[in-house]
Amino acid sequence: MRLYDIIKKKRDGGELTTEEINFFIRGVTDGSIPDYQISALCMAIYFRGMNVRETSDLTFAVRDSGERLDFSAIKGIRADKHSTGGVGDKTSLVVGPIVASLGVKVAKMSGRGLGHTGGTVDKLEAIQGLKTTLSEEDFIKQVNDIGIAIIGQSREFAPADKKLYALRDVTATVDSMPLIAASIMGKKLAADDDCIVLDVKTGSGSFMKSVERSRALARLMVDIGKRAGKKMVALITDMDVPLGHAIGNSLEVIEAVETLKGRGPEDFTKVCLTLAAYMLSLAGMGTPEEAERLAKRAIDDGSALQKLKEMVARQGGDPACIDDTNKFAKAKYAYAVKSEKAGYITRVDTEAYGLASLALGAGRNTAEDAIDYSAGIILRKKTGDFVEKGETVATLYANDMEKFAEAERILLTATSFGPTMPEKPPLIYDIVA
Amino acid sequence: MRLYDIIKKKRDGGELTTEEINFFIRGVTDGSIPDYQISALCMAIYFRGMNVRETSDLTFAVRDSGERLDFSAIKGIRADKHSTGGVGDKTSLVVGPIVASLGVKVAKMSGRGLGHTGGTVDKLEAIQGLKTTLSEEDFIKQVNDIGIAIIGQSREFAPADKKLYALRDVTATVDSMPLIAASIMGKKLAADDDCIVLDVKTGSGSFMKSVERSRALARLMVDIGKRAGKKMVALITDMDVPLGHAIGNSLEVIEAVETLKGRGPEDFTKVCLTLAAYMLSLAGMGTPEEAERLAKRAIDDGSALQKLKEMVARQGGDPACIDDTNKFAKAKYAYAVKSEKAGYITRVDTEAYGLASLALGAGRNTAEDAIDYSAGIILRKKTGDFVEKGETVATLYANDMEKFAEAERILLTATSFGPTMPEKPPLIYDIVA
Repeated sequence: MRLYDIIKKKRDGGELTTEEINFFIRGVTDGSIPDYQISALCMAIYFRGMNVRETSDLTFAVRDSGERLDFSAIKGIRADKHSTGGVGDKTSLVVGPIVASLGVKVAKMSGRGLGHTGGTVDKLEAIQGLKTTLSEEDFIKQVNDIGIAIIGQSREFAPADKKLYALRDVTATVDSMPLIAASIMGKKLAADDDCIVLDVKTGSGSFMKSVERSRALARLMVDIGKRAGKKMVALITDMDVPLGHAIGNSLEVIEAVETLKGRGPEDFTKVCLTLAAYMLSLAGMGTPEEAERLAKRAIDDGSALQKLKEMVARQGGDPACIDDTNKFAKAKYAYAVKSEKAGYITRVDTEAYGLASLALGAGRNTAEDAIDYSAGIILRKKTGDFVEKGETVATLYANDMEKFAEAERILLTATSFGPTMPEKPPLIYDIVA
Repeated sequence: MRLYDIIKKKRDGGELTTEEINFFIRGVTDGSIPDYQISALCMAIYFRGMNVRETSDLTFAVRDSGERLDFSAIKGIRADKHSTGGVGDKTSLVVGPIVASLGVKVAKMSGRGLGHTGGTVDKLEAIQGLKTTLSEEDFIKQVNDIGIAIIGQSREFAPADKKLYALRDVTATVDSMPLIAASIMGKKLAADDDCIVLDVKTGSGSFMKSVERSRALARLMVDIGKRAGKKMVALITDMDVPLGHAIGNSLEVIEAVETLKGRGPEDFTKVCLTLAAYMLSLAGMGTPEEAERLAKRAIDDGSALQKLKEMVARQGGDPACIDDTNKFAKAKYAYAVKSEKAGYITRVDTEAYGLASLALGAGRNTAEDAIDYSAGIILRKKTGDFVEKGETVATLYANDMEKFAEAERILLTATSFGPTMPEKPPLIYDIVA
């Protein structure tokens, strides 16, 4: 088998066989295929696409390029959610405890933030003392004991994806539906869950800017997951507006805790309940509507909050922080961003909001950067709100006053005003089952 | 400027600017652009194409990636022909002397054969003693003195093309019209001619298998040449049938000499006269019809033959060979390939005929291989001829008897027979001016 023939076949619109796809990913993983052939094939795939069978085979080959987890020692049904990444997306911190409090196991390995998007592991580490590294044995034991563990990835899963992504990133072949799906699902399927709910973000704060493309990606990933024997659902949720009001690690954990106390922002609470409902429903706890009622009750009766506290305590964090969020370390400085105009906020560039938070020190430009957990933004006004000239639209938090100017500039540039109230985008566009 | 943005622009169907194309080729030449980005861009160009302006800029950038020739010291109008390569194509040996004998200067740098196609320089070297390496000074002096010189390329022109081609060859991006045109014309325009006649071969023995694609390539190359200030014409000529009867170096030179003596095969003679006519016409010697009459007369009155003898003598070869072609070194063995079937030859795979000649030792598999000048094939029957079972279809020549079996097998496999006489393909499909 020669990669040349595989490139030519795809270039001419052919369907690659399982063997050809395995040959490709094996060669990517062991370095036997030169980069220039990999990038040529990625570009041919960009133009010609792949059908569901090819994309599934690609996903499975990527998944199998490294180690896979074995969760068979976990008792009960394992459910996970996976977000394609957004701004202010702290859903895992709410959804995980809700689902676990209702008896479905949450064995979650999460990522760190990069660029404008945050990561669940960084957010958890904003809780003083909390450890996000556990041995696999301890991880499984914790899930069996209290129903939930959220940790960072101790090992590199799907190494072929890392190599492929690095090349795609410099050859303008990132934006290809089958390559995106295989990258996300290849890593996701290296874990060992029974049920997966995908949260496919759409809009200015996500990497999928149109609902149609988000829907197509969701459809594809759901189909791939099913072919791997998983119970799958995908939600298409809005990321044209940041989720909730908090952006930045401590600020987001506090917002998640408030939500588990029943005092969360309406939009964020709704997305969390829906995600939890589908995880529970896939795990056999009734229809999504029935499951959503269960999820609501887990907030109302405090059992979900209690589950979060158990997890924090078990992973070495201080559960008193959860009872009293004033115990979180605070940023030294706060700065009110005032509107220079009057009018309705008609649109925001949510990705830029993420970049403003990054500029305050809340995120990383490169994987080596250190994070300032207390830095971030609280949005006082969101899309659809009316703002008077001089009114505060957001409060910025940082430990270095010099960072406010750039963040303010980014934030104001990313906010559009108009004379009439805009139509609010739906919070949840679609459910793909 | 970043190549990433250029790849993305072309991927999305954009038109590249002159600066972007120059940046690309400069980076290819100096090695500053990594191979994986070059191949990704080539694949994007494969799918999106380039317009005439972009292709011209690409061609000029390729031309300017190395040294260029300066023929301004040659007195008179300089005309050249360039073939896209075929089997049994010895036209330069006939056309050059005809044109030069009529006062138009022929300063020709030719290539060597590779794979199934032959090269003019190899054919010339079949003439004992003839040198195909001359200093630029001697080359120009010879053209000024006798009107013609045909030599090999002493230097590497258009080095960017060599790099690009090597990558395209392993990434399935050879077959792209703008990349083909820029490769051929980038090298051609590094020479310094006033008039260029392109002989674009079409059919089973050429790399363009369809007339439509040959016509599109011809159109593109003619337009590029005109943008470089050249007088241009392209002929689309048939390569579904080998040209003439001889394949192999000495055998082809003998056939060319016979043609200059007025005894050449009809098809080959016609193509030579037409090519010569257009070279002469572009150089100001009347309409193509008038010029073709001049060309015919140059054969009839022996002046073209005389010009070849002058060139052979001047370049150190033995002109007696031209008078008496029996003086050419002969292969030790001849072998008659007999037909296993009766019927009309309905179709031949001309490329395979070239490979049969290669198998006899007449060509090279790699640039380092040595050539057996006396090896080759004389076709006794061609497409459209009726063949009795057991009748000789071709005579093979080699200095190693063991080579006949494979060549015979290739030849017979490549020859299709049928009960009815096939329609003859046109010899010249089109003239693109």
